[in-house]
Amino acid sequence: MERIVYLNGKYISESDAKISIFDRGFLFADAVYEVTAVLDGKLVDNAGHLARLKRSCGELDLELPVTTEKLTSIQKELVKLNNLKEGGIYLQLSRGNAGDRDFAYPVDTKPTLVLFTQVRSLLECPKAKNGIKVISLPDIRWKRRDIKTVGLLASCMAKQAALSAGADDAWLVEDSYVTEGSANNAYIVTAEGTLVTHHLSNDILHGITRKSLLQLAEEAGIQIEERRFTIEEACEAREAFVSSATTFVWPVISIDDYQIGDGKPGPVAGMLRKIYIDIALSTAD
Amino acid sequence: MERIVYLNGKYISESDAKISIFDRGFLFADAVYEVTAVLDGKLVDNAGHLARLKRSCGELDLELPVTTEKLTSIQKELVKLNNLKEGGIYLQLSRGNAGDRDFAYPVDTKPTLVLFTQVRSLLECPKAKNGIKVISLPDIRWKRRDIKTVGLLASCMAKQAALSAGADDAWLVEDSYVTEGSANNAYIVTAEGTLVTHHLSNDILHGITRKSLLQLAEEAGIQIEERRFTIEEACEAREAFVSSATTFVWPVISIDDYQIGDGKPGPVAGMLRKIYIDIALSTAD
Repeated sequence: MERIVYLNGKYISESDAKISIFDRGFLFADAVYEVTAVLDGKLVDNAGHLARLKRSCGELDLELPVTTEKLTSIQKELVKLNNLKEGGIYLQLSRGNAGDRDFAYPVDTKPTLVLFTQVRSLLECPKAKNGIKVISLPDIRWKRRDIKTVGLLASCMAKQAALSAGADDAWLVEDSYVTEGSANNAYIVTAEGTLVTHHLSNDILHGITRKSLLQLAEEAGIQIEERRFTIEEACEAREAFVSSATTFVWPVISIDDYQIGDGKPGPVAGMLRKIYIDIALSTAD
Repeated sequence: MERIVYLNGKYISESDAKISIFDRGFLFADAVYEVTAVLDGKLVDNAGHLARLKRSCGELDLELPVTTEKLTSIQKELVKLNNLKEGGIYLQLSRGNAGDRDFAYPVDTKPTLVLFTQVRSLLECPKAKNGIKVISLPDIRWKRRDIKTVGLLASCMAKQAALSAGADDAWLVEDSYVTEGSANNAYIVTAEGTLVTHHLSNDILHGITRKSLLQLAEEAGIQIEERRFTIEEACEAREAFVSSATTFVWPVISIDDYQIGDGKPGPVAGMLRKIYIDIALSTAD
């Protein structure tokens, strides 16, 4: 059965959801996005995602055409119309169809707002249970990774290169340090039990799940260091993992075929995943 | 009157030219493009553009769905249908509509091929005659600028910042050196009369017009150095200019409000523009 998606004020069948070839999202990657997880038909950490969306828009002088309350009601309507129990809701806002192609921002152009649902098994999932293998690759992305734009080709290339190499994902390396995964934040737990992840800057996405996890880790008494780390340090770590809106926490069991810890999902990753999901299930809205 | 555009095998009115919201060009900037100038209803330097398109596709494992001969016939048909005398033809190839959103490259997905015309005054144009003012900005683009993808938001931001500052364009600076303009290659002519432009690498677009201009300059006996230069060196240059497929050559008369040379379009830029256009008019096809 076809999904019902949202496009500029209308709820329509996915095969009818079309945009102009002059849409700036298509011509210039002039668009931002967010993905919110859905558990039990409810939205997880959604206020954080919509706040980040507003920030992304602000950085690009892109006007959000509706309130965040309206966005939430659209998200909930889509969950209902598609009877979505578990998965995600994708939201994209582009600068719209300016009628022609010109690098400068158009004036008085109506943004394009698109939302659609995706069915995914988030709780019971082999990668969460067994962990993933990553390879390291140079981070060739642009310098404003804090803005969540659809300029994602470098991430697609990294993901594809990882799959081609028989791995599941890539960790991106810049100036000898790991920035993040292809579409997730990256963490290690040192031999001393310290949780390390790249500090917030323009070099990484300010993960909503990252923020929640760091808070939960702190509450659990885990020592946290927000700083850069190398692949070499990661290979000597006790454990490693990634986080994102729809993966929550996935353990990393090898980097460039080098086994992390005992090569099995680590306890810190497992505990944080469990706590995060427990709270998500009880606070999702 | 509406333009006739090309979309996946059909010649249709521009307002009917629509693509799926699941097109990877829209969701991931997973698409490449080329712009070919049109003079007297004929294509300028088109073989070079189509060769670069093939190279971009190769770098991304993106299959060109038609031959370059077929692309040329589509371009010529569009020129005819729209009675285009002067301007450009835009061509974009995306990895197509995979039916859903996933970073990995889809299998067996048909690419989306789009072409449309743009009416522009290329020969008689105030900026060519009077020159442009540029400002310098950090180059925040990704590291594969040699692949001509639609991941152009950084360029749009730079162009917009230049306009907001009362200038016409931006020169992008990385590690203290000028890479290129927001959508053009950048050149200076030193006090000694040497033409300097960034060497070919992954840091800049391998301009088709750049290649032709360097050949013409060499034939005209101009000393050429393909190397990096700083904004400081540019400010001390005798003249400066930019090149691209549809601007050909535009003189730069100031950088960050610092007057270049005598503040008027320089003779080397003027001569190269004239020679390039003369040859373009006689060889356009």
